[in-house]
Amino acid sequence: MEEQVELVGRAFVDHYYQLFDTDRAALSSLYQPTSMLTFEGQKVLGAHAISEKFMQLPFDKCQHHISTIDSQPSSTSGGIVVFVSGSLALPGEEHQLRFGQMFHLIPSTGGSFFVQNDMFRLNYG
Amino acid sequence: MEEQVELVGRAFVDHYYQLFDTDRAALSSLYQPTSMLTFEGQKVLGAHAISEKFMQLPFDKCQHHISTIDSQPSSTSGGIVVFVSGSLALPGEEHQLRFGQMFHLIPSTGGSFFVQNDMFRLNYG
Repeated sequence: MEEQVELVGRAFVDHYYQLFDTDRAALSSLYQPTSMLTFEGQKVLGAHAISEKFMQLPFDKCQHHISTIDSQPSSTSGGIVVFVSGSLALPGEEHQLRFGQMFHLIPSTGGSFFVQNDMFRLNYG
Repeated sequence: MEEQVELVGRAFVDHYYQLFDTDRAALSSLYQPTSMLTFEGQKVLGAHAISEKFMQLPFDKCQHHISTIDSQPSSTSGGIVVFVSGSLALPGEEHQLRFGQMFHLIPSTGGSFFVQNDMFRLNYG
């Protein structure tokens, strides 16, 4: 069970950042109308608004590099909390930006997961 | 409701790190037998083992400085997910260590909350 949770967390994280870096519009499929995003302190509710937020970020291309992924079963039946640290490379920026992000994943019909909670912060050292 | 969640998250975070920095043994009261901690990738289950882990950390005194606190209602009835970034000052260390930490808080009998999920990571820049 615990190993399963780690595997799901890692697979989700790989998938999520690959979409973010190569096909950002497709991220909307990972959220639902109840989903919540807090991005650098700004709150956004629902898959549609979250997708718009991502599309409006002031950079076209970016590359996420993952440092750590930790996952635990949440108390929600079948849910998983995932905590990621890593760095973000933006075009024309010499230094990568460190970031932290947490996801609360909930099982969806069809055996996959959607993101109920998503909180993202850049780390200014 | 949303403002309430922010207030609870902030109050919890203030209380948590004040206990950590001044009365670390008392942290055990914030966990339950089902609680899970992942500390720098090491998994610990249950209030007793989590408390032991904190007491065995290789520093007596420390001081947490909080940079950001984000909170959202979780899908668990009345639960709250909290995402913290900050820095940790250790005795004799010139530089503070940046860290990220997430908590999943669950309502307990008596109107307060306990920590169901806790994941902590230092950020190496």
